[in-house]
Amino acid sequence: MAESLQETVPIRRQECLSSEELINTFKKVRYTTDQLCEPLSTEDFVVQSMPDASPAKWHLAHSTWFFETFLLMEHQPDYERFNANYSFLFNSYYNALGERHCRGRRGMLTRPTVRETFAYRRYVNRQIIRLLETSNLDKLQTVAPLLVLGINHEQQHQELLLTDIKHLFAMNPLRPVYRQSRVLTSRLPLPLQWKKFLGGPCCIGHDGKEFAFDNEGPRHECFLRPFEIGSRLITNEEYLTFMQDGGYDRAELWLADGWDLLKANSTKAPAYWQYLDGQWLNMTLAGLRPVDPSEPVSHVNYFEASAFAEWSSARLPTEVEWEVAAFEQSRDGNFLETGLYQPVSSGNPAPEKSVGTSSDSGMFKSSSGSNNRGNLDALQSDDWPVAQMFGDLWEWTRSSYSAYPGYKAAAGALGEYNGKFMCNQFVLRGGSCATPRSHIRLTYRNFFPPTASWQFTGIRLARDV
Amino acid sequence: MAESLQETVPIRRQECLSSEELINTFKKVRYTTDQLCEPLSTEDFVVQSMPDASPAKWHLAHSTWFFETFLLMEHQPDYERFNANYSFLFNSYYNALGERHCRGRRGMLTRPTVRETFAYRRYVNRQIIRLLETSNLDKLQTVAPLLVLGINHEQQHQELLLTDIKHLFAMNPLRPVYRQSRVLTSRLPLPLQWKKFLGGPCCIGHDGKEFAFDNEGPRHECFLRPFEIGSRLITNEEYLTFMQDGGYDRAELWLADGWDLLKANSTKAPAYWQYLDGQWLNMTLAGLRPVDPSEPVSHVNYFEASAFAEWSSARLPTEVEWEVAAFEQSRDGNFLETGLYQPVSSGNPAPEKSVGTSSDSGMFKSSSGSNNRGNLDALQSDDWPVAQMFGDLWEWTRSSYSAYPGYKAAAGALGEYNGKFMCNQFVLRGGSCATPRSHIRLTYRNFFPPTASWQFTGIRLARDV
Amino acid sequence: MAESLQETVPIRRQECLSSEELINTFKKVRYTTDQLCEPLSTEDFVVQSMPDASPAKWHLAHSTWFFETFLLMEHQPDYERFNANYSFLFNSYYNALGERHCRGRRGMLTRPTVRETFAYRRYVNRQIIRLLETSNLDKLQTVAPLLVLGINHEQQHQELLLTDIKHLFAMNPLRPVYRQSRVLTSRLPLPLQWKKFLGGPCCIGHDGKEFAFDNEGPRHECFLRPFEIGSRLITNEEYLTFMQDGGYDRAELWLADGWDLLKANSTKAPAYWQYLDGQWLNMTLAGLRPVDPSEPVSHVNYFEASAFAEWSSARLPTEVEWEVAAFEQSRDGNFLETGLYQPVSSGNPAPEKSVGTSSDSGMFKSSSGSNNRGNLDALQSDDWPVAQMFGDLWEWTRSSYSAYPGYKAAAGALGEYNGKFMCNQFVLRGGSCATPRSHIRLTYRNFFPPTASWQFTGIRLARDV
Amino acid sequence: MAESLQETVPIRRQECLSSEELINTFKKVRYTTDQLCEPLSTEDFVVQSMPDASPAKWHLAHSTWFFETFLLMEHQPDYERFNANYSFLFNSYYNALGERHCRGRRGMLTRPTVRETFAYRRYVNRQIIRLLETSNLDKLQTVAPLLVLGINHEQQHQELLLTDIKHLFAMNPLRPVYRQSRVLTSRLPLPLQWKKFLGGPCCIGHDGKEFAFDNEGPRHECFLRPFEIGSRLITNEEYLTFMQDGGYDRAELWLADGWDLLKANSTKAPAYWQYLDGQWLNMTLAGLRPVDPSEPVSHVNYFEASAFAEWSSARLPTEVEWEVAAFEQSRDGNFLETGLYQPVSSGNPAPEKSVGTSSDSGMFKSSSGSNNRGNLDALQSDDWPVAQMFGDLWEWTRSSYSAYPGYKAAAGALGEYNGKFMCNQFVLRGGSCATPRSHIRLTYRNFFPPTASWQFTGIRLARDV
Repeated sequence: MAESLQETVPIRRQECLSSEELINTFKKVRYTTDQLCEPLSTEDFVVQSMPDASPAKWHLAHSTWFFETFLLMEHQPDYERFNANYSFLFNSYYNALGERHCRGRRGMLTRPTVRETFAYRRYVNRQIIRLLETSNLDKLQTVAPLLVLGINHEQQHQELLLTDIKHLFAMNPLRPVYRQSRVLTSRLPLPLQWKKFLGGPCCIGHDGKEFAFDNEGPRHECFLRPFEIGSRLITNEEYLTFMQDGGYDRAELWLADGWDLLKANSTKAPAYWQYLDGQWLNMTLAGLRPVDPSEPVSHVNYFEASAFAEWSSARLPTEVEWEVAAFEQSRDGNFLETGLYQPVSSGNPAPEKSVGTSSDSGMFKSSSGSNNRGNLDALQSDDWPVAQMFGDLWEWTRSSYSAYPGYKAAAGALGEYNGKFMCNQFVLRGGSCATPRSHIRLTYRNFFPPTASWQFTGIRLARDV
Repeated sequence: MAESLQETVPIRRQECLSSEELINTFKKVRYTTDQLCEPLSTEDFVVQSMPDASPAKWHLAHSTWFFETFLLMEHQPDYERFNANYSFLFNSYYNALGERHCRGRRGMLTRPTVRETFAYRRYVNRQIIRLLETSNLDKLQTVAPLLVLGINHEQQHQELLLTDIKHLFAMNPLRPVYRQSRVLTSRLPLPLQWKKFLGGPCCIGHDGKEFAFDNEGPRHECFLRPFEIGSRLITNEEYLTFMQDGGYDRAELWLADGWDLLKANSTKAPAYWQYLDGQWLNMTLAGLRPVDPSEPVSHVNYFEASAFAEWSSARLPTEVEWEVAAFEQSRDGNFLETGLYQPVSSGNPAPEKSVGTSSDSGMFKSSSGSNNRGNLDALQSDDWPVAQMFGDLWEWTRSSYSAYPGYKAAAGALGEYNGKFMCNQFVLRGGSCATPRSHIRLTYRNFFPPTASWQFTGIRLARDV
Repeated sequence: MAESLQETVPIRRQECLSSEELINTFKKVRYTTDQLCEPLSTEDFVVQSMPDASPAKWHLAHSTWFFETFLLMEHQPDYERFNANYSFLFNSYYNALGERHCRGRRGMLTRPTVRETFAYRRYVNRQIIRLLETSNLDKLQTVAPLLVLGINHEQQHQELLLTDIKHLFAMNPLRPVYRQSRVLTSRLPLPLQWKKFLGGPCCIGHDGKEFAFDNEGPRHECFLRPFEIGSRLITNEEYLTFMQDGGYDRAELWLADGWDLLKANSTKAPAYWQYLDGQWLNMTLAGLRPVDPSEPVSHVNYFEASAFAEWSSARLPTEVEWEVAAFEQSRDGNFLETGLYQPVSSGNPAPEKSVGTSSDSGMFKSSSGSNNRGNLDALQSDDWPVAQMFGDLWEWTRSSYSAYPGYKAAAGALGEYNGKFMCNQFVLRGGSCATPRSHIRLTYRNFFPPTASWQFTGIRLARDV
Repeated sequence: MAESLQETVPIRRQECLSSEELINTFKKVRYTTDQLCEPLSTEDFVVQSMPDASPAKWHLAHSTWFFETFLLMEHQPDYERFNANYSFLFNSYYNALGERHCRGRRGMLTRPTVRETFAYRRYVNRQIIRLLETSNLDKLQTVAPLLVLGINHEQQHQELLLTDIKHLFAMNPLRPVYRQSRVLTSRLPLPLQWKKFLGGPCCIGHDGKEFAFDNEGPRHECFLRPFEIGSRLITNEEYLTFMQDGGYDRAELWLADGWDLLKANSTKAPAYWQYLDGQWLNMTLAGLRPVDPSEPVSHVNYFEASAFAEWSSARLPTEVEWEVAAFEQSRDGNFLETGLYQPVSSGNPAPEKSVGTSSDSGMFKSSSGSNNRGNLDALQSDDWPVAQMFGDLWEWTRSSYSAYPGYKAAAGALGEYNGKFMCNQFVLRGGSCATPRSHIRLTYRNFFPPTASWQFTGIRLARDV
């Protein structure tokens, strides 16, 4: 969900929530962001560790700018900007809204300070609440969808804030710890099995009844060939076997672009691994730790995922296959709210939620993405659960990110760029340990270039039958 | 068909041709390559004008190396290599066959000389003919598919040889002429109309009965939404209107990557256009000429095609739509054999073949790609021809280049890399004025990165209904 | 004095100062650094705005590391490091001292925090004072030269801290103010006159009697041709005339490398100038201000200085000429202590020192660099003062930075790299408004690559007679 | 003498030669160029193997363009250009003469062909001879200096043609042979001794009585400290000892820029060396040969020369020292005319000239650069010859390339850029085995950036006494 890449924000349906419900949800999500910043020193907020990442301060300001621009500037007639310069500084990529600060230089902005940025947040929070409190029902009908959109947008930046801080800390030889998470003893992972699905016509995509990003629809028919899907994510141990079998030295396993990249960077392991004194270590948000063989392998890019699948005589699933396979699976999982910020072994029990970081609420009811089951029952040939479909790690699919048939872009600045990232990116599904639980859906389509590895990305295999 | 990118050579079916037919076809195709070189000076053979292009000399040697490596070295027991170093110098990207010369440095190889390269060609030609003449029926069964593959491979390099020479000549301020083609007076183009197709299930892909590259199959079912497709290619005049309407200055029309590229290069027009003394000129293989308003616009990259479609309130077709729409259309068109090397107005009569450059033969019978019409008749709602589907220009589709469902890679060096280019490329369909007529099929999938513009690429629009 | 470039630290002579004098000087200089940081927010300390610059935090830590490494680690037997990792993080370029953190990534280090960095400074300050207080005379003889070296090193980083902060603030669209300096009304500059010097043998370089960097010696004989030197620095008004006369468009005025650089960057004005609403503005440490015509032009690189000289039918002085011309001139000037941080018109009276930032002390007596006048009187043909030789701006000379005849590198880590920067750099003389007054000498040789413009650099002309 | 870098062509004095002498010299030098091209295939003429190099064809055309532009266009009223486009294509860097073809794209110009280029040469040759034959004495006075300049310019390009071809051939895995030179059995080198020179005032630079480039003057006084200079060039064997002693791994031996370059390129040996099957091989114009321990080490850049000197507890000479030391030495040596194109052991007898390639003539009498010996006798303290000062290899000095005191640029296009390369380059002295014997002088100043290694460059040491 690199904000420069995605943020496919335009929404598809209006929400029917009371002003009070909206205010509560707004407060909770904004508060969650503040809590995520709690472990950071002032210095940590400032730096941009690579062009694809943003400073924490920028995430705080940009998500606030979004509320200011699309709600307050548009719908609060007497609204006075906190600072007129911020519209230039904190616009991400909305060309329709005028010039913006160069993405690669976000880390040059030591001003506004962190303190000023939080003041900006509080100011906009108060104004938004005032707007909601004073809106009549008509106005609420207009404003609510934008608010829900802003909330989802803020949740995207919560995940990016974490992955960007992880990237920053990984570059520091002092290996700072973001949060010392509870120590989890990994149990052995579940055995890797293959769950079969019959071929035939099926439907995927969002039906538009609840909130979704517009790239999730329209719901449409597809043909599926029979396939089977792996019962859990690939583990570090399995990935180490691939490495020991010369995975990074065998050109025949790799996409051509991936092989070139690997050669240019002398890559030998996933992004956050390093070999020290005879063992592989893994940089996590809880600091540098030995690679846990039972944990799912994370921070692999598309090329690594694809090469591993090739080596396994398998392949990555398409997003159609993934959505069909995920339909019957539990939406529970290891999300942001567990406070682990790291994937866990499939053998471990479902993580309990940690106290205080949940932004789950009445508004975010379990959302299947669709109650229209279509012929999905018919596709599934046997009946046992597939693990880790939701949470833990975003799962690379082999599907290029492109428009669903019949997709129409929304109008105006919000909709201007719906399809503008539909090029050279692959779809990822299912959310991660840094995704807010209420943010994800069956039909949710995340996307990143095949080179990206700083997100919580992992590998699930599929095969033709 | 950038050889480093494509050359998806593994074949799908064996051919049942007599040794005599094979020899004749082989000779004709090899002779066509020689003829294409006739206008070149020795100097023109040597230079690599950009990393994606290759020197003409390299094309001559590499296509010869292919026959040597996969036929002679494998199936002619007493074969002696012409020069052992050539396997290093003229391997393109087959890692399984050992080390190879760095692609970007092909233009450094002033030796072997052009004369030596032609000697190499003649040597291998004689050896191939000897192999075919002396093979019994069993051996012919083994050798024939490889030969057909080599012939198709050579045809791909015929097109690349022309596009690479065009790129080279375009960099020379003297604007050399490759061949002074017959002067064609452009008639007004046909009016742009929209042909409707009903939605529903359909089948695309190669059924495997005749020769095809393996990425064309397997044949498989898809769902189509109703759509309509433009009755001809977009003209220079239409593209000029887009330019005059600020096409290159309006971010909202462009994919994000395309906009960045355009800004970085200050692009203002298609690749081979230049503005001189108040008019737009166009570099062609017949030299620099005024842009002809009636001709199809050529040498646009994917980003330009996509932005033009956006500006037209339309979109590019998917490859499924293209194949369905092309099914009933004539396979005739402005191919390599016309000797024009430039697209022509849709209003002009079908070009006559020029004498002597045709490599068409009994072996290359009209190939529909499939005699299984499936329900295609049902999809088409009215009955008039769509122009320029075959020949003139490769047509960008909005489909990323990826594996068809059920696709399986072949074994060994030939099959090693079937899918290795399935990343960050888009599918083009229909062949161009530089494609040998016998090389193209309904199901043929060409592919290039969205940045590529040195091929004969053009724009056909589609729309949802 | 880019620390990666210069820091030519090895000293040439031992000092004979009491422990008390040393402690006082040490305290004052360290306190000056702290004062320079007073206007900075925590965020400002962290960011590296380009590879040549360093974060303020890094300057604070590195200058402290220097004292720790060369005094405490070597000469305080029971010394315990504040943090063992710091020797890796804050080593600048002393290869002999082991691995060090990549220069270009200094801005990635959000930890240690600013607070921790100041704690490090205080810890080392206390230990240094303890070392000096407890050293007997013998030990003091050993330690004093290293301390004086460390003090001079710290002063170099005071200047760099200011120029790096200026560069950082100039990249921020909010144009932060470092310090709102006293408003100085510029008087008209003095008329530009030429002071003649006769040719003949002369001596330059440091005689080694007081502290100097080793690149300032040995003192040696040279031959001078008759020349004349400009009576003051070139002003913004004069530079604007050059610009209006097409200075940036006339290749014949520029060194070949300079012309290429200018073309590549589309340079049209000095580094910190921007044209807004019909006037030229100038980023200063007091914020964005209109370009003052009477002020000396600053932040020009060597190529700009050289092109301006060419345009003026003059040339830049050699460092021999500069030193000869400066010999009789006042060492007073607009240095760091004035608190202006900006050059002032030659027509203004000598600036008063501001209170509190002076680190001048008994130890830093007026230092002529030499009391041996040699035949310098003979060289000077008339007798009126030349303005602005010291302070205001570093003056580009046309002399490449290279070893004086007879130069010998010192031994060990301190001396390891004495000559390692003697390549592709030019000598600058005289100090600037960001140089501590006590740091400069007649013989002081600063040096930077010809591309550098973020230092306080200016132009003085010379001519053959 | 990279033409883009140097070609410091303006001349200092007019010549008093008869029309016949001028014609003879002109013919001989032009004929020598033709002879140097004799071993090349047409293909070899076309390619530019790196931005600093030029295609052989370009050298042929550019040196011809020089005669056309500065003699025929200026002084032959009825002259008709061979081809008007050539002034754009073959201008090197004379901005005053209008736009020119981008240096880095010289290798894209397959047209004009080699045949056309030679026709251009013959055409201009005839016209130049006609101009000389028909000039009266007055006109000859004007034209002769330009002709002599053009001849010297052509000689510079003879050397560049050879070094550029060497670079091209070294990139070809077939390792083409330029000319199979006579096999020379290397004798042991002379022992390395140190020749002392006393310090004091001295004079260097050209006195202007015969032809010289303007950067060689004016003659001027300098002070020298006592020094001693190595009696011969450093050998491959000595350089191998440096390598085996960790020369490329010891940062303390290297200039900072050199160390960075070495690390970035993983350099381990001189440019044309490669390690194969347990031995070091050396690419020469006679093909790949084992490194000869007795030969001078060649194709080292300034950084390598400087690091070797540091390792030897010595240094490189200044150009003043070099010129003083060379004054008494024989101007004979291993120049272009020997046809060896490779340096030879100092122990071998002076090479005989090969037949036919000499362009030596009456015009190019032994040229001391000065008959004014000044006090040079006094400087030299003992009296035995120093070997290899002239020919074999250009010798890096530690002197930056800069203007001599009193240097004045000439007027017009020829003089426009006299000093434009005086930045980031070092002076080399003495000529090489690729330099025409008549081209070199005692005062000749060649110059290249410290990174350059494709010229015939070597190492001579010096030391303080």
